[in-house]
Amino acid sequence: MNEGGNVLHVDGERLWSTLERSGEIGPGRAQGLCRLPLTDADREMRDQFVDWCREAGCTTSIDGLGNIFARRPGEDESLPPVLIGSHLDTQVAGGKYDGILGVLAGLELVRTLNDRAITTRRALEVVCWTNEEGARFQPPMMCSAAFAGVLDVDWVLACEDDDGLVFGDELRRIGYDGSAPVGGRDIDAYFELHIEQGPELEANGTPLGIVTGGYFTRGMVIEITGENAHSGPTPMDKRKNALVGAAMMIVAANDIGWQQHPPGKSTSTRIKVWPNKPGILPDYAQVTVDFRHPEKDTTLAMESVMKAAIEDCCKRANVSASIAQSWEFGNEVFDDECADLVRSAATELGVSYQEMLSQAGHDAYNMSRVAPTTLLFSPCKDGISHNESEDIELEYTVPAVNVLLHAVLARANR
Amino acid sequence: MNEGGNVLHVDGERLWSTLERSGEIGPGRAQGLCRLPLTDADREMRDQFVDWCREAGCTTSIDGLGNIFARRPGEDESLPPVLIGSHLDTQVAGGKYDGILGVLAGLELVRTLNDRAITTRRALEVVCWTNEEGARFQPPMMCSAAFAGVLDVDWVLACEDDDGLVFGDELRRIGYDGSAPVGGRDIDAYFELHIEQGPELEANGTPLGIVTGGYFTRGMVIEITGENAHSGPTPMDKRKNALVGAAMMIVAANDIGWQQHPPGKSTSTRIKVWPNKPGILPDYAQVTVDFRHPEKDTTLAMESVMKAAIEDCCKRANVSASIAQSWEFGNEVFDDECADLVRSAATELGVSYQEMLSQAGHDAYNMSRVAPTTLLFSPCKDGISHNESEDIELEYTVPAVNVLLHAVLARANR
Repeated sequence: MNEGGNVLHVDGERLWSTLERSGEIGPGRAQGLCRLPLTDADREMRDQFVDWCREAGCTTSIDGLGNIFARRPGEDESLPPVLIGSHLDTQVAGGKYDGILGVLAGLELVRTLNDRAITTRRALEVVCWTNEEGARFQPPMMCSAAFAGVLDVDWVLACEDDDGLVFGDELRRIGYDGSAPVGGRDIDAYFELHIEQGPELEANGTPLGIVTGGYFTRGMVIEITGENAHSGPTPMDKRKNALVGAAMMIVAANDIGWQQHPPGKSTSTRIKVWPNKPGILPDYAQVTVDFRHPEKDTTLAMESVMKAAIEDCCKRANVSASIAQSWEFGNEVFDDECADLVRSAATELGVSYQEMLSQAGHDAYNMSRVAPTTLLFSPCKDGISHNESEDIELEYTVPAVNVLLHAVLARANR
Repeated sequence: MNEGGNVLHVDGERLWSTLERSGEIGPGRAQGLCRLPLTDADREMRDQFVDWCREAGCTTSIDGLGNIFARRPGEDESLPPVLIGSHLDTQVAGGKYDGILGVLAGLELVRTLNDRAITTRRALEVVCWTNEEGARFQPPMMCSAAFAGVLDVDWVLACEDDDGLVFGDELRRIGYDGSAPVGGRDIDAYFELHIEQGPELEANGTPLGIVTGGYFTRGMVIEITGENAHSGPTPMDKRKNALVGAAMMIVAANDIGWQQHPPGKSTSTRIKVWPNKPGILPDYAQVTVDFRHPEKDTTLAMESVMKAAIEDCCKRANVSASIAQSWEFGNEVFDDECADLVRSAATELGVSYQEMLSQAGHDAYNMSRVAPTTLLFSPCKDGISHNESEDIELEYTVPAVNVLLHAVLARANR
């Protein structure tokens, strides 16, 4: 890895200014971003990213879900490529680094190799996955899921946002309905660098986390059915208030999280109610809850307790409920061989690291189903993310990017 | 009250066909209505009502909030008029009679007097109040409140619906931004006939309720502040999930209602959450709750318990809360003299009646502040309202309309 006596390093300042330019596109209320997928802001960021990739000599292809692949050719174009990436979309009140670092670090790798005119045996592709956050179209990570064959492409295209706008229409509107097939091709390996979104690395002063697995997560959308009635005269024992049933379930889910804390947790962040007006008892509510624990059996037990709680809440609120949708992630297996390349690179570069579990979902989970996959973490300030005050520092970020560079090089030259 | 030996009666079939025509305008999902204020459906109903009133020889005036007054002149136009009315808007999933009966019964009175060429000393005015339900702009009953000087006209005009559309703009859009001043004139008396929205009259086989007062109602809008954070890695003890705080408060309010059941009750039908997306803990929630009991002190006690519960929920959910808005109604005093006219008319016509409390809010509450006011109830099927299956029967409705006719005549000829 010595090039003229100098160990190969990325240009941290260049990476930083690229991140800063991204941080101007789709500003949020405070100092962060609100760059929802398939909005004008998303288009602007995609255009900027594609421009950068072309300037770096890549050819870009866009698939039928808007996933962008910027390819730097390899010496042997018959070999499957090594992919490096993450996502450029954010939460409604999101930060400037969640996902974005992973994509732009991939771009910085390409630029670094260009600077030194280094070729690789296998092609490299920097990938931007559409709609990782799920802030506009649910579920999250839907486009890497479709790439991995977990979701059907047409089903994704038909998804609607909360205003009834359709994914496929919006994708066409911003001009990113590409012609490349979604998935279905050989990938040699997938590398994703992401901010930790937790406080461990910072607290330990460790610049790199190697993710060995995920918290096992089970989620569900519960639909609650009540009955419209006047909120005045209807006596308590005749009410079928779907919102009351929903509230009881949110409280029950929260209690279950506390019973397994730490490290278990439960979450409810989203509710829909109809008609959701004063004076009329709602006949419909929908709540989304999920449960996370490092141990799969514990997560499944939390889910079982929730199912019993749903029945109990239905009795107490005099409503009925059903589970309209459920999902799981975090049980995926990352690739030991790729992780070994990361460990070796870290050791050679003198970058300390720790092995850890991911508590959030990532596109890497989907990719692990179709390619050897590694997920790396770099520190973020106070573990804050999905908040506009999300922050990172260059000097604590560059070491992980350099390790990524060397691990990717080793894999691509295999 | 004998006219040529015949006791004066309204034309029940004509009233019924008028109600049926109204029931075609603004259809809901099922057999009821979704006629929200200042929508195209509301305009269509208003146009139809104004046409009917003009055909009945009335002159209509519209005030700055779209309240419609259809005037049948009196023999002495210098005297303050007698008002009869209610509202023509409905809930999102509303019925065909709530409010509507009161307005169209007023119209039927005018038509009946026209048929017999009966004049009255005082003018009669049939009134349609804008936005009684509060299904689109909050609070409910806002335009009779402004007429009575309880709310400021400009404040009402600036109210926004859930899509950010402004009351004043929407009123102008449908062409009902009238030039008449809002309130500020002498009213001799106000009569409102309304379906009971409870099961008592039907259960007792009584066709008429004379409302002597209301359940005392206190309501509040609670705003809850949390903090955006990732729903994955954030440990339970670091979470400030505004939705969890809101859910705890809804459950607490519901418990308070049960503690006073019967006859007390508590209600929460409406919640707003931001961002209300998967994966991100919401930093804002808003819930609306109210408490009702015939005894004012009990309602106030329920409210006090709620205030303590809000503090408790804030501690448990690690959020903060404040009461952004509060209101009360049901403490108004109806007019004994007017009620006596109703009692006398009922006795003369052989219509049995019972005195009762209203559990819902009505425009009559506001009018009682500026004019002697009477509120009458007629039966509705199974006590159901604010539900598309709301229903009434002609033969159980006409007796109350005839009593209204004779009581109004007596008052107007005073």
